[in-house]
Amino acid sequence: MSFGDVRALLFDTFGTVVDWRGSITRMGERLAAEKGIEGVDWEAFARAWRAGYRPGMAPVIAGERPWTPIDVIHREILEKILVEYGIDSHFSDDEKADFNLMWHRLDPWPDSVPGLLRLKQQYVIGPLSNGATVLLVNMAKRAGIPWDLIMSSDVTRAYKRDPRAYQGAIAALGIEPHQVMMCAAHNDDLDAARGQGMRTAYINRPYEYGVGQTVDFEATSDWDIITTHLGGIADVLGV
Amino acid sequence: MSFGDVRALLFDTFGTVVDWRGSITRMGERLAAEKGIEGVDWEAFARAWRAGYRPGMAPVIAGERPWTPIDVIHREILEKILVEYGIDSHFSDDEKADFNLMWHRLDPWPDSVPGLLRLKQQYVIGPLSNGATVLLVNMAKRAGIPWDLIMSSDVTRAYKRDPRAYQGAIAALGIEPHQVMMCAAHNDDLDAARGQGMRTAYINRPYEYGVGQTVDFEATSDWDIITTHLGGIADVLGV
Repeated sequence: MSFGDVRALLFDTFGTVVDWRGSITRMGERLAAEKGIEGVDWEAFARAWRAGYRPGMAPVIAGERPWTPIDVIHREILEKILVEYGIDSHFSDDEKADFNLMWHRLDPWPDSVPGLLRLKQQYVIGPLSNGATVLLVNMAKRAGIPWDLIMSSDVTRAYKRDPRAYQGAIAALGIEPHQVMMCAAHNDDLDAARGQGMRTAYINRPYEYGVGQTVDFEATSDWDIITTHLGGIADVLGV
Repeated sequence: MSFGDVRALLFDTFGTVVDWRGSITRMGERLAAEKGIEGVDWEAFARAWRAGYRPGMAPVIAGERPWTPIDVIHREILEKILVEYGIDSHFSDDEKADFNLMWHRLDPWPDSVPGLLRLKQQYVIGPLSNGATVLLVNMAKRAGIPWDLIMSSDVTRAYKRDPRAYQGAIAALGIEPHQVMMCAAHNDDLDAARGQGMRTAYINRPYEYGVGQTVDFEATSDWDIITTHLGGIADVLGV
């Protein structure tokens, strides 16, 4: 397959470019040590926080709830699980607001920044994420992720896998769908992107969720590129 | 005035960050030398090309013409002035397409990149331009302009000074209007931005048009910041 007409690569971010599970676990453990909180399994806490994310977006995608930024959804889940873990009383409202910003401070997988720096030489690169613009920019500035531009749910006013999320990003790029490659560790994200005419690259991240992972251990379709790290996309594209 | 709540700085690009007149003149002179074209005043050619830009956008802004990308508008003007200058026959269709991409290859004013690198340390920085996303990204990659994100007419589907251009950018940033500062060398751009609740910074560029300049020799209102170079914004903001 030739990729000569591809001009832009858009990346799913949570799980594909950054390791939310490891990052939240590490930040939780540091915070617990500062606060003298004991007995919390922070990896399970991270998974619980993430598990609320799809149910939180579902009513927005279904049109049953007006547009709601991802920071608000993350905060609603946080309030709930702080109570479930019995640690709610340790945090003031301001401290909860800062706690919620953990999602702005996630660390990339080790291959992400080196792979993106290669791809950036020949392609326009950006996230296509359910994250907010400010979240994605803060994350990139902190972690050295060299995006050329940001395609966020603030730009498209839709959450993936809603077709409008992909359509909005393509329109905002001002190029044709087949000139854009969606790169993700999630088969259903690529399925939705292909449905809008985009090219597809699957990056296998079988440890994204740890013990909680139930899907995305392998490519489940004939995606245009199938690899295990972002440099693998650069290898296929010859950059 | 305190700017403590400002999080993002958006910049007009043509004339404010990049020197379209000098860049088009230099590229035209090089192209003429290659082609053996003589007798063209390339600075006047650059001004004529730019002069068609506002009339070209006007029917789109007025809703009399459907959304039309800036590359198309630039190409329409180019076709017309190549004939007016009597040099149309020197260029094939492919060569005209490449000629039109001069607008993707403009050079920054000397103070632009150093000023933006300072501002990027504490603020989200991006263009808010009538240019297309791909144009603005290509320009930034070539010239080393360190944007965090791109707010283009492809994102907002509106041309400045249409209020929807500013509203669309604010929505895509996902923050409040007063948290965004519009930075421009054009008083009417700042006037439109202020009308949408944005903060304003005026950068004086009295040589943008050369002999053709008729406005914007000085600030015509009490903009939040008034300066002569991008570093002057960083000076006021203390970065």
